[in-house]
Parts: sequence; C-alpha cells; structure tokens
Amino acid sequence: VDHGSGATERGRAERLDADDVLAPLRDRFVLPTGSESDLIYLDGNSLGMLPRSSLARLRDLLEEEWGQQLVRSWPSWIGLPMQVGDRLGAALLGADPGQVVVADSTSVNLFKLGWAAVDARPSRTRIVTDAGNFPTDRYVLEGIAHARGLTLDLVEAQELDAVADAIDEQTALVSLSHVDYRSAAIADVAGLTAAAHDAGALVLWDLAHSAGALAVTLDAWNVDLAVGCTYKYLNAGPGAPAFLYVCSHLQAQLRQPIWGWFGQREQFAMGAGYDPIPGIERFQVGTPSIPGVMLVDEGVALLAEAGIDRVRAKSTALTSLLVQLADAWLAPLGFTVASPRDPAQRGSHVSIAHPDGYRICRALIDEGRVVPDFRAPDRIRCGLSPLTTRFVDVWDAMDRLRSLVQRGVHLSYGSDRAAVT
Amino acid sequence: VDHGSGATERGRAERLDADDVLAPLRDRFVLPTGSESDLIYLDGNSLGMLPRSSLARLRDLLEEEWGQQLVRSWPSWIGLPMQVGDRLGAALLGADPGQVVVADSTSVNLFKLGWAAVDARPSRTRIVTDAGNFPTDRYVLEGIAHARGLTLDLVEAQELDAVADAIDEQTALVSLSHVDYRSAAIADVAGLTAAAHDAGALVLWDLAHSAGALAVTLDAWNVDLAVGCTYKYLNAGPGAPAFLYVCSHLQAQLRQPIWGWFGQREQFAMGAGYDPIPGIERFQVGTPSIPGVMLVDEGVALLAEAGIDRVRAKSTALTSLLVQLADAWLAPLGFTVASPRDPAQRGSHVSIAHPDGYRICRALIDEGRVVPDFRAPDRIRCGLSPLTTRFVDVWDAMDRLRSLVQRGVHLSYGSDRAAVT
Repeated sequence: VDHGSGATERGRAERLDADDVLAPLRDRFVLPTGSESDLIYLDGNSLGMLPRSSLARLRDLLEEEWGQQLVRSWPSWIGLPMQVGDRLGAALLGADPGQVVVADSTSVNLFKLGWAAVDARPSRTRIVTDAGNFPTDRYVLEGIAHARGLTLDLVEAQELDAVADAIDEQTALVSLSHVDYRSAAIADVAGLTAAAHDAGALVLWDLAHSAGALAVTLDAWNVDLAVGCTYKYLNAGPGAPAFLYVCSHLQAQLRQPIWGWFGQREQFAMGAGYDPIPGIERFQVGTPSIPGVMLVDEGVALLAEAGIDRVRAKSTALTSLLVQLADAWLAPLGFTVASPRDPAQRGSHVSIAHPDGYRICRALIDEGRVVPDFRAPDRIRCGLSPLTTRFVDVWDAMDRLRSLVQRGVHLSYGSDRAAVT
Repeated sequence: VDHGSGATERGRAERLDADDVLAPLRDRFVLPTGSESDLIYLDGNSLGMLPRSSLARLRDLLEEEWGQQLVRSWPSWIGLPMQVGDRLGAALLGADPGQVVVADSTSVNLFKLGWAAVDARPSRTRIVTDAGNFPTDRYVLEGIAHARGLTLDLVEAQELDAVADAIDEQTALVSLSHVDYRSAAIADVAGLTAAAHDAGALVLWDLAHSAGALAVTLDAWNVDLAVGCTYKYLNAGPGAPAFLYVCSHLQAQLRQPIWGWFGQREQFAMGAGYDPIPGIERFQVGTPSIPGVMLVDEGVALLAEAGIDRVRAKSTALTSLLVQLADAWLAPLGFTVASPRDPAQRGSHVSIAHPDGYRICRALIDEGRVVPDFRAPDRIRCGLSPLTTRFVDVWDAMDRLRSLVQRGVHLSYGSDRAAVT
C-alpha cells in the first residue's frame, strides 16, 4: 500500500495529468458535455469513446462516397478490410502485412478460425480453453466441438502450468484470451503458444481486452491465429466489425467453413465452384461493412499516433493509481482488488469486488455519475482507457465511490440485475 | 412492341412522372448534385441511394447516443435487431412479429440457416439449388455440403418443374433466390415451397433482389427460412447488415452452428454452457452493428411509407418502359432483352445483352453518365429503384445508350474487366 507517494492527494493526480504526453489526444474525442460534463467514464473497455475524426470520416463516406459516387466507390472500398487490417497489424499487433483483415464479429471470426484449426488437425479430438474465458469464446468452441464430435476441455486456471498440463497429443486447438475480461490478468502468450506447438496443436488467441491497450507481438510470439474486438480500446463504436489474424505460413492450408463470395478468387467472374483466394482474403465471407471498417481505421490511426508503448505506460500508471486508492479507501469498506497487483501482469482494467457490488455499481452510475461496468457475481470493473481517461478521473471516481458507500447510498437500490454489456 | 402508346416520346415519360404518387419520396434521398447532377443511376439493386433521414439518424447515434450516453445506450440498442426485424417483416416480408432479425451478412446468414436446416434432416443427403443462383449462395451451400458429406445438386433452370423434379426423399434443403440476380425472373415461391414440403425438405429463400421491390409474403407461402440483403432496395448502405427469417414453428427445433453470446439465454449471466434463447434471437451471433441496424430501420421506414404495392406498381411500369424502349431503339443495334417480357414474371431490374456488352457498359458509365452494372458475360443490368428512379431517367438512359452505340463510342474502350459489384 503506497500511501507515502501521495496517491490519496488529488494534487498528485493533477500533476500526473500535467506531465502526461498523451493528454492532448483526449480532445480528439467527443467528450460528455452539458448535463453530462460531470460524467466519469470508466467503461472504455466495453464501449470506447467516439473519435472526432470518425464524425468527419463518416460524413464524407455518407455524403460524398455513398451519396454522390454511389456504386462507383466500390473499387476504392473493396480493399479496405485488408488495408485497415495491415494498419492495425502494424500499429497494434506486431503483424507483418497480409495477415490481418477486418471482418464480421469476434464470435463469427472465432468460429471461422476455430473450425479451420480443427480441420487442420483431423485426427485429434480435443479443444482446450479456459473455464473463465469470455462466454462467447466458450460457447463458440462448444458449438464447434458439438458439430465435430470433439471434446471441449475447460481448464480451471489460465496459468501457464495448468493449461500446459492439459495439452496433449490429442489436442487440436488451444484457444485463450490474452487479457482476462474480468480480472485483467495477462496470459503468457509466447509460453502457452510454445507449449501448444510442442504438442502439435494450433493456438487461437482472443485479443479483445489487449488490442489497443498493450503491445501485442503476434509474429514474434509465433501465434497461429487470433481474433479481436474493435469497439473497446480501438474506439470503433457499437457493434463495429472485428478483426482476425492468420499467420502467413498457415493461410494456404487453412480453410474456413463459410464459403462466401468475398473469399472467392476472381470474385466478379462469379465462377462455378468455390476457389478461395490464397491470402488473408479467404477469411472474408460477405460484403464488409464499409462504415464499420472506416470507424476501425480512425480508431487505429489515433492509437498509432499515440504509440502503443506510451499507451501501455499510461495504462499501467492509471491502473496502479486505482489500486493504490482502492487499498487506501475501499479496502476498509469491504472491497477487495480482484485484479493482479503486479502491473506487469495486469491489462488496462481493474476489477474491485464487494458483496454488495451490484447495488453499489447501480448507485455509482446513477448518483455517483461514474460509469464502470459490472460482472457477476460481485465485481465492479473499471476500464481505464489511456487515450481518454485522466488521472483525476481515477481519483474523482474512487473518491465518489468511497463517499457513496460510506453514506450507504447503495442500500436504497435493489439487487435485480438488468442487462449491461 | 408497343410503339403505339408513345413510349418513345419523352413527353409520355414526363407525364408518368407527373402522375407518380411516389415521386415526392425521391427528395427524401441524397441526390447527385453539382458535377454529378447529370448522372442517371440505374444500380440501386446493387447499392441503393442514401436516405436523408439516415444522415440525421446516424448523427444522433454518433453525437448523442454513442458520444454522450456511451455504454448507457446499450439497453435501448440491444433489442433493435429484433425490433427492426419486426418492422421489416411487417412492411416488406408478410411476416408476423418474432420471425425476422437483422444480423451479420447475407452469406453468414445463409450458412447459419442452411446448416440448421440440414441438421434438422439428419438422414437426408442432398441440397438442391439453382445452377444460376447468386455465387455466394452456391459457394456457401457447397461449403455446407463439403463439411457434412452431402451432395449439392445444381439444377439448370429455376422453373418450377425442373426444380420440383430434382427434389426427392433424400433432399434435406432446397435453397433458391426469389428474384434471379441476372435475369430478374421471379420464382414461384409458394409452388416450389410446397413441392419441397411434399418431399419432406426444408426451403431457404434468398430475397436479395425482391425485398423492398415487390410484395413478399413469407407466412402465407409457408416458407421455412429466408435471408436477404439491405443495401439494395432497402437503401441501408455499403455492407449494411443482412436479415434472416425463421418461421415461428421451426425456431425451437432449429439450432444454428455459430454459438455466439447474442443467442444465449440470459446473456449477461454469462453462464457455463450454451443455452439458446427459444425465439428468433437464437439466430444472432455476436454484437450487432448498431449503425447498420439503424440504417436498415430508416430504409424500411421509407418503403413502409411508400407501401410495397405502390412500389411494385411503379416498378412494373418502369421496367415495362425500359423493355419498350429496348425493343424500339436497341434491338436494331444488336441488343436482346435478357429478362422476362411478362412484367408479372419480372423483378425490378432489366438485363439487356449485347456481344459488346462490357465495352458498352464502360462507355455508358464514363461518357453516357448512366450507371447500370455489368454481369458476365454480356449483360448490362439496369436496376430501377421505384423510390429514386424516374420515368424520364429510364427514357434518358436508353436515349443516351442508343446514341452512344450508334456513334460507336464504345469501340474505343478495352474489354478488360475490372471489379464492379
């Protein structure tokens, strides 16, 4: 517990903001104004904020490219999913060109790549994942296992040893999340990938809570397959298209199961049989969302400008401040930090648990004007998005939270749970 | 050939526009202006025009719902795919509520429903489609057949007798397009559905070229499954999400293969195993594109206001005028009408074939300032979108086309084909 450094003094948070090299980027986003200007947003890891450049980009797409040029814009649109994929791969994923494409949803991409992986290991019978993996990962893998007559093994911990022990010569695929959606624990991608490869299995990593928050180096880690989300740290908006990565040397031998026309060689020849493009394009299916791909492009551009190492440095400082304040102010109120205490092991969110977590979360949103999110059964998840979250936001949010619980404001809230993403 | 009615007189086209009850709706779209104001757009069946209301809807989504309310908007967003599906179903598909959802791409939806259908007929070995069906339909079905060890039978004609003859007790699924993407021929949905049902097979109809152009009555026709596109006659923009229909009585017994979290009962309980929602929601996969779903909503609202019967009446009059002008002006230049001559058998586009079709199409776009599209090997496809195409547009387009071919303008163009959607 680091009381000595002055974490509980607001002036220290103000000084951290004053020294923050990324601070000017905050004004590149649409910020809550007017009656919302007191809002503290700690849910950029569920839905990131709106870049101002995205407004201009969409206006141009709508009014000029679609409105005026109409179908004549398709020749400039059709390559965008790969072009934006390359930019995303270079800025955030450590991926050489030709390995990333923006397409579909994370869930659909998990299905396509998971299926392709088990197809490539036809004599093997097992898929391994983390029992605490994000629900859609578990469900999609369960569906693949069901359809293929395979076993889905849910390992209880995402520790290297536990997972490595579960991988054997019957394992076709190991699919895990880089950063845990609840605890923010960072998995050892390189180590687990090597363990899977030692057993002859393929790996499929979900980067939903890491892409845009910390450096991902897929090529260097020898990752086979990855998917990720763009509406969190990439700030591409609600339901923006996801991305997928397939390392170059596997592309020719992997074939995804949804044989759509955007994966077809000489697509507009509209030939008789499916003949997939040799490159990353074969992992496309139907017509890409052009507004969605452009929103991803704008989000990536801001992160590229910031630089992922600077993003990570600020992220670590933000989550460390939150942990310090939680120790100082919240622990006496019954909270526990449910994220790794070592910042090197922690992504860009911090979960704090409390037996009354659900009611406290509701009160914090309604009366505290602080928006985190809630994850069952008892965790308040605070997402700290380095491009938009200030150090004073962390300080003020924790200050409002302790005050509210001290005053028992949450006790007037019910415990019925509503849908919150 | 109806020369007597005066089709070749521009004044008649002007009078048809003056009498057109749908004419005022044209100003509800962003129209080509300035240097583009001479453009005649006959490709609304590839990419429909931009409704002005969509600009306002997206501005509000971006600046207020996303920009200011952020994640707090999800409770109002999460039901939109079903709500817009219900509005689409009521206005355009003859579908009672709870059977349509806006989701994914047409190709992904074909995969989900085609897979679910063959799963529901486990002892059967065949899928039947039209050899002339749209490429992605053929490829996706080929992929399902490949994965399941089934036979994909490509029937040479979409005539009722030919297809009906191909359906037998081994047929699991019959999947066809309502309106042919090249010829605009309308299939007998009710008759072919009955033929499939007589043999115990399920049907999956692709409504890409009919939804929004003519009345579709899925419930009355006893259709099992359907998919469709929203960026054509629904004017929802490039890569807008598609829709799917599953008739109520089949929903509980059909299970699609991509077990994403948006199909999960009590999604935010994030429970251990996949347990799909009993209703149409189970055919969702990942997080829906909220901008996309809103764009679909705006497109549907305009068509609902127009009324699909009035849309169809104008469509028939537009395509009839084009056929009359093709007979009068283009037949002598070597063109043939490659669409049904009976308007009752024809959707809302007319294909005209010419041995030099590709070069003529390029010249027509570049110098004629008329934008149709081209379909190999020799067809110029003219899409007449009743909300935005005027009768004088048809007259002027055919006038420019005949003039250009008479002057041999196309002879200076090459025959290399570029990608055009």
